[in-house]
Amino acid sequence: MAFSFELLHTDAASSASSGPRRGRITTTHGIIETPVFMPVGTQGTVKAVTPETLHDVGAQIILGNTYHLFLRPGHELIERLGGLHTFMNWSGPILTDSGGFQVFSLGKLRKIDEDGVKFQSHLDGSSKIITPESSIQIQQALGADIVMVFDECIPYPSTRGYTIDSTARSMRWAQRCRNIHDRNDGSGLFGIVQGGMYEDLRRESAQSLIDIGFDGYALGGLSVGEGAEQMYAVMDYTLPLLPSQQPRYVMGVGTPENLVEGVRRGVDMFDCVMPTRNARNGLLFTHTGKISIKQAQYEDDSEPIDPLCDCYVCRNYSRAYLRHLYKSNEILASMLNTQHNLHYYLHLMQQMRSAIEHGDFARFYADFYSMRA
Amino acid sequence: MAFSFELLHTDAASSASSGPRRGRITTTHGIIETPVFMPVGTQGTVKAVTPETLHDVGAQIILGNTYHLFLRPGHELIERLGGLHTFMNWSGPILTDSGGFQVFSLGKLRKIDEDGVKFQSHLDGSSKIITPESSIQIQQALGADIVMVFDECIPYPSTRGYTIDSTARSMRWAQRCRNIHDRNDGSGLFGIVQGGMYEDLRRESAQSLIDIGFDGYALGGLSVGEGAEQMYAVMDYTLPLLPSQQPRYVMGVGTPENLVEGVRRGVDMFDCVMPTRNARNGLLFTHTGKISIKQAQYEDDSEPIDPLCDCYVCRNYSRAYLRHLYKSNEILASMLNTQHNLHYYLHLMQQMRSAIEHGDFARFYADFYSMRA
Repeated sequence: MAFSFELLHTDAASSASSGPRRGRITTTHGIIETPVFMPVGTQGTVKAVTPETLHDVGAQIILGNTYHLFLRPGHELIERLGGLHTFMNWSGPILTDSGGFQVFSLGKLRKIDEDGVKFQSHLDGSSKIITPESSIQIQQALGADIVMVFDECIPYPSTRGYTIDSTARSMRWAQRCRNIHDRNDGSGLFGIVQGGMYEDLRRESAQSLIDIGFDGYALGGLSVGEGAEQMYAVMDYTLPLLPSQQPRYVMGVGTPENLVEGVRRGVDMFDCVMPTRNARNGLLFTHTGKISIKQAQYEDDSEPIDPLCDCYVCRNYSRAYLRHLYKSNEILASMLNTQHNLHYYLHLMQQMRSAIEHGDFARFYADFYSMRA
Repeated sequence: MAFSFELLHTDAASSASSGPRRGRITTTHGIIETPVFMPVGTQGTVKAVTPETLHDVGAQIILGNTYHLFLRPGHELIERLGGLHTFMNWSGPILTDSGGFQVFSLGKLRKIDEDGVKFQSHLDGSSKIITPESSIQIQQALGADIVMVFDECIPYPSTRGYTIDSTARSMRWAQRCRNIHDRNDGSGLFGIVQGGMYEDLRRESAQSLIDIGFDGYALGGLSVGEGAEQMYAVMDYTLPLLPSQQPRYVMGVGTPENLVEGVRRGVDMFDCVMPTRNARNGLLFTHTGKISIKQAQYEDDSEPIDPLCDCYVCRNYSRAYLRHLYKSNEILASMLNTQHNLHYYLHLMQQMRSAIEHGDFARFYADFYSMRA
């Protein structure tokens, strides 16, 4: 099945482009019900969980990092071994980022020109280059179901001048990505709206991408330190510009609140390391907010992480045990904490999908915040 | 159900006390088919696996470390939270060691007298004491199904004089353990034969324990650097001294070869950190021997760890992927490697149980070595 998107439900009180949306993405590796959160599998594994656990917690699609897999073990090796799905034993859909975010984050270790980015590997210092063309080829060698254009995630804050130049280059690169992308494997190619915190530049960037034509549209350059209000403002003025019949994805976002606010504004897809990274640091999500399991108050606590949660971890383990594992540096701490946090995120998305279907999103939204008050 | 042991099959060619034995231990938390290998769960978790995975790979009983749990999180806390089974979500039988091995390993940080051992916690340097009585009380507070006497695991090499004194003290302590052990919770208490590498001292130690009377008998002070030949020699002359109708357990052993040689000599129970610790170091067991997954030869290798193995890991992952995970320091490397190694160990035990039942142990034994040749 080639990539496609179907918009199933929209909120009666808002437009299809700026209110909660319930959709369905079809890929070669299966169906994705949206809005969806994508756990991040940087190096060919979502850290500390097996693919079976990902299925158990309700993951529909995961994200792979092109930069990391390009450097180690290499996309040619993964391709020879049957592609990323086979390599990592994940049969569901995979979205790969373009490598741009990591490459641009290298600071002094990278050099940008019109062709692409030269950089030094963080692993061994060797010289590498990624261009828009090679990024797409790497992602297609990995076997991605959703391929992202190679662009610059503009740092925050950036001057208007820098933002104009960077966005223009990213739009030229987007066209080159569109040109090289091979549709024959059924993958979809997403453009990424840049433009920093400048509404007119976001508008121009969105229009440039729409003119090129993509299978979906992402908002890049968010969750880079701009704060929630600016993030929501960018969503507010950018999302209505995007074609309502195609999926929209906010990259690298975010907190549970960010997901709720994003869905309320019409976002279909999210990814973030937050649930998995926080888990390894002992920060656990609950219906009433985040807790730090290392705290002394949990030493003797026989309650589960979240009494309202029905995940495997909450059904079987106490806060006292999880605190003990964390304090003892046990691998099982990362395993169980990750499983719980992913369940929290994916269950939250499931609740939102259900609320949209039932025309109930406003009530869900009010309940979500009232529990955290 | 109170602790009991039933001897089901012995090898026609050998006696019940010095040849392969097939038995069954009954405990409050379930049945254990012997000979059995017990995965080690030092700090209230077998490192890098969930209890469900332990069940999947065929674990029947696990070992908990009294020293570690006494120091952190403390046996009183575990008892308040319902005991170690509930705390760690393991519903099967648990054997706890006495803490003696770890306490005696502390070197300068510990001081022995007739009463017990004073020592400094390796965690915070605080002064602690474990006596034969407190060891049993800690183990019973944890809720162990099989409780071990508090003794000294005599270092290798040790002089005859030291070995005489240490063994005599361990035997006096064994009597104190027997006196304080409370049978009302259905747990069994095992004595531990010491005597170093001195046959007459092993004989005396075994007889002392038999005179006191225990639910099972362990051989301690092995796998401490004495080499396989001496280990087997101690088994050869000690095992026939032990009551054939009670289980015998060789502590801290060992390699797959050690298990096969132990079963051949009439051992019913083993424990060792080798499968789990080796896994975390990338050392994986196969039918033809051990491999180090980090080696370059596996970089492009699409084969499973062991083509003859039907474990979850071998059914789903290539050596190339496992090498990538290991090189990338991914937690999943430890998880998958541990699952495979435990499956290898537990499947080996299962094969031996089956061989004994079918009067086939000699053929199993020949096959085992011929595959590794």
